[in-house]
Amino acid sequence: MNYTALEIAKKYNGVIEGNGNIHLTSLAKIQDAKTGCLSFLAHPKYISFLNSTKASAVLVHHDFKLEKSVKTTLIRVSDPYASFNSIITETSGHKKKKHIGIHQSAIIDSSANLADDVYIGPYVTIGPDTKIASGVHVYSNSYIGSNVSIGKDTILQARVCLMDDVEIGARCILQSGSIIGCDGFGYIKKGEKNIKTPHLGKVVIKDEVEIGANSTVDRATLGETIIHKGVKLDNLVQIAHNVEIGSNTVIAAQSGIAGSTKIGSRCTIGGQVGIIGHLVLGDDLQIQGQSGVISDIPNGKTVQGTPAIDFKSFYKSYVLFKHFPDLENRLSKLEKI
Amino acid sequence: MNYTALEIAKKYNGVIEGNGNIHLTSLAKIQDAKTGCLSFLAHPKYISFLNSTKASAVLVHHDFKLEKSVKTTLIRVSDPYASFNSIITETSGHKKKKHIGIHQSAIIDSSANLADDVYIGPYVTIGPDTKIASGVHVYSNSYIGSNVSIGKDTILQARVCLMDDVEIGARCILQSGSIIGCDGFGYIKKGEKNIKTPHLGKVVIKDEVEIGANSTVDRATLGETIIHKGVKLDNLVQIAHNVEIGSNTVIAAQSGIAGSTKIGSRCTIGGQVGIIGHLVLGDDLQIQGQSGVISDIPNGKTVQGTPAIDFKSFYKSYVLFKHFPDLENRLSKLEKI
Amino acid sequence: MNYTALEIAKKYNGVIEGNGNIHLTSLAKIQDAKTGCLSFLAHPKYISFLNSTKASAVLVHHDFKLEKSVKTTLIRVSDPYASFNSIITETSGHKKKKHIGIHQSAIIDSSANLADDVYIGPYVTIGPDTKIASGVHVYSNSYIGSNVSIGKDTILQARVCLMDDVEIGARCILQSGSIIGCDGFGYIKKGEKNIKTPHLGKVVIKDEVEIGANSTVDRATLGETIIHKGVKLDNLVQIAHNVEIGSNTVIAAQSGIAGSTKIGSRCTIGGQVGIIGHLVLGDDLQIQGQSGVISDIPNGKTVQGTPAIDFKSFYKSYVLFKHFPDLENRLSKLEKI
Repeated sequence: MNYTALEIAKKYNGVIEGNGNIHLTSLAKIQDAKTGCLSFLAHPKYISFLNSTKASAVLVHHDFKLEKSVKTTLIRVSDPYASFNSIITETSGHKKKKHIGIHQSAIIDSSANLADDVYIGPYVTIGPDTKIASGVHVYSNSYIGSNVSIGKDTILQARVCLMDDVEIGARCILQSGSIIGCDGFGYIKKGEKNIKTPHLGKVVIKDEVEIGANSTVDRATLGETIIHKGVKLDNLVQIAHNVEIGSNTVIAAQSGIAGSTKIGSRCTIGGQVGIIGHLVLGDDLQIQGQSGVISDIPNGKTVQGTPAIDFKSFYKSYVLFKHFPDLENRLSKLEKI
Repeated sequence: MNYTALEIAKKYNGVIEGNGNIHLTSLAKIQDAKTGCLSFLAHPKYISFLNSTKASAVLVHHDFKLEKSVKTTLIRVSDPYASFNSIITETSGHKKKKHIGIHQSAIIDSSANLADDVYIGPYVTIGPDTKIASGVHVYSNSYIGSNVSIGKDTILQARVCLMDDVEIGARCILQSGSIIGCDGFGYIKKGEKNIKTPHLGKVVIKDEVEIGANSTVDRATLGETIIHKGVKLDNLVQIAHNVEIGSNTVIAAQSGIAGSTKIGSRCTIGGQVGIIGHLVLGDDLQIQGQSGVISDIPNGKTVQGTPAIDFKSFYKSYVLFKHFPDLENRLSKLEKI
Repeated sequence: MNYTALEIAKKYNGVIEGNGNIHLTSLAKIQDAKTGCLSFLAHPKYISFLNSTKASAVLVHHDFKLEKSVKTTLIRVSDPYASFNSIITETSGHKKKKHIGIHQSAIIDSSANLADDVYIGPYVTIGPDTKIASGVHVYSNSYIGSNVSIGKDTILQARVCLMDDVEIGARCILQSGSIIGCDGFGYIKKGEKNIKTPHLGKVVIKDEVEIGANSTVDRATLGETIIHKGVKLDNLVQIAHNVEIGSNTVIAAQSGIAGSTKIGSRCTIGGQVGIIGHLVLGDDLQIQGQSGVISDIPNGKTVQGTPAIDFKSFYKSYVLFKHFPDLENRLSKLEKI
């Protein structure tokens, strides 16, 4: 990249405070930046770096109050992180190479139907009746079963597994090691034994979904496990059979959703959350990290704890939990009166 | 499939309520069913669907009490889910194709010993002195080390890893991405450094075990990590070195068992449970999801919490925890008297 | 191996109690040992096996007090487990075969730079500008992107993934299925949608680091995710973008560290721990299993709970939590006076 601070300000309706003619040739975090870097300040934890940073310019919020004058040029904008991110995206676009072609070692069933401009890497296997749309990238050692469909411009990183009958939408990213369409964990007790329930259903993943590295999504027993448009799953997440996740919901690493639970749209689910099966969770929820959800939740709630309760109630109780010995002392004192 | 409701009733000693001659050509969950579908009702959460379902017939329990009359034909049986599951299994049997043969790209050491009717997929590697029994299926890109043995009719899905000296029984299913026989997490402190303990032991997995996608089972330091007959592990489960798991125990997703712990038979362990090392846990336990077990547990107990305590005690205390501020208020009031 | 008890005692400055001339031909845990085995006693849980063990000799601590005489020969040393471990290492050294050579099926970009004595297994792919140092082993089906560097004698087990621009130090072990350099979980809200933050940074892993099976380490948004010398990660661990982990810190299975958090040196982090983003944690911490850390921690502390608090405080409060109904009864009684 090569911009002046003024040019950046112009791009994002910003206001310059300091030297607008300074040249910006790279991007860096405020604590790592060197001369020539553009940086940003969003999280209040990093304010102290503003004095010491070597960044030539820093994107800050219009309302940000400067305690004392700084050496770096400030560019005041309405959303510093979004502006910074937009420049990263622009820069990375230059970097990204477009792969095309089918590696000779890929093993592709003759009944599979691939668009002309796909990339299929080395040692990939693709089963019968599978359809792969234009612009799809499938990296090395990935496994694609039979009757799979993959929408336009979707990317499968190295070593992804799509089992039979899986449907993936357009512009999805499946990170390395993710496995879509494995059998669900369903058994019927017969005396001491657990007899496996066959899994005849499928997985349907809509457009613009991202699945993290080594995450797993089980196929339905019957019907479909559905992940709606714009959902983002982090690494090592587990989605069980017949789960349905509403559009634009975001689930952080190592969380697990048990069978047949339905989650609404635009939820934010923290890391290491567990949700039991057969629940109906509303839209716009916030579930704090490590919570254990064991009952339905209406729209818009924030919950925490195992079992999860209202977030504020949890914190009020937890503050008292931390001083439990003091409370017990107060009780003992009263008893002695 | 093609049955009348009467034919299904006959198969499972059922009793018809409604039109016994109706034709059933497919299977579906009660909320998704269309005309011609057979469905079932097991979990009370789904009773409300009985009025609206388009299923032509629904399997219900002999004792199920109908609130008001329904359009669909009821087939009363002793275990609706088991009957339904049995029909799924029958149906899926028709669907399953039997793969046979060794793909030319598989790299198999000359000292390995494979039965005649195995299936070995593309890009599989098999090390020296490994024995693979009749009917075994090994799918694409799986890695099998040296001196491994795999029993009759066991299935390795795509991208499974069996490290050296691993023993797998008959009729097991190892789902994609599972890794059996990785080194345990053992170190000896030497000053600040952690010196790796070599892992010379093995993993022994008995018959009819299922291992979930991306789960990991560590080899023993010395001796064996043992998973007994009929154990079922869900996805992303971690079993550490020298653990022993009793027959028919079931462990849900993302649970982890630390080194040298011994778990009894027929236990049900929820998701995201953690169990520390060197414990002895009894038979027929139920460990609730997200519990943290730090001490031995006798046979037949149900536990919850971190650290895990008796399930009923946990719930009684948790109810009070939720109302902790009220209790503190009551205490404050008494202090003011 | 073939030693007498006296020879072992001599090796580790030990003192014999019993028959020093007894022959020791193999190693086993005290509960599994047979005649001819050398065993050890370190964890007090295993003292009871000393009477029944068939081991011909057992390493015990100089200060260990014998309750009643035993049949086996005791070898008193200053650190029984370390001595035992040292003999295991010696024994396993004899067993370990050194692989050398590049398998003909490996696909290596012409601009990659490999030392002469590396081992590259079947179906490995290696991208442009990648450098692989002397003695490195890369096992089957591993994927190595472009501009990666791998230091001397590092081992990649089967099916490891190193994405572009990753740096791995010398003498590291990356277990099967581990993925280094996947994209971090970073999005910017734009209305309802989550727009992906490009990840232009890298991962730097220093010398003597071990990464467990199916663990994931995200690349930085900008700058570096850094894992310092001697760090050991267990299986299924998640390290997010821009995290920094200090030297010789040890993290047990299924723990997850969120973005930009900095962890000190020589910490011991239990299994299934979650740590939120943007924290600064000190050196020499102990974080108990399943804890949820949501604030900075100074050097040397031991914490537990979600949210994590001082370990002793947590336990004092938890003891009272377990007896919460009794406390409520005491309170009720007082109210009735």
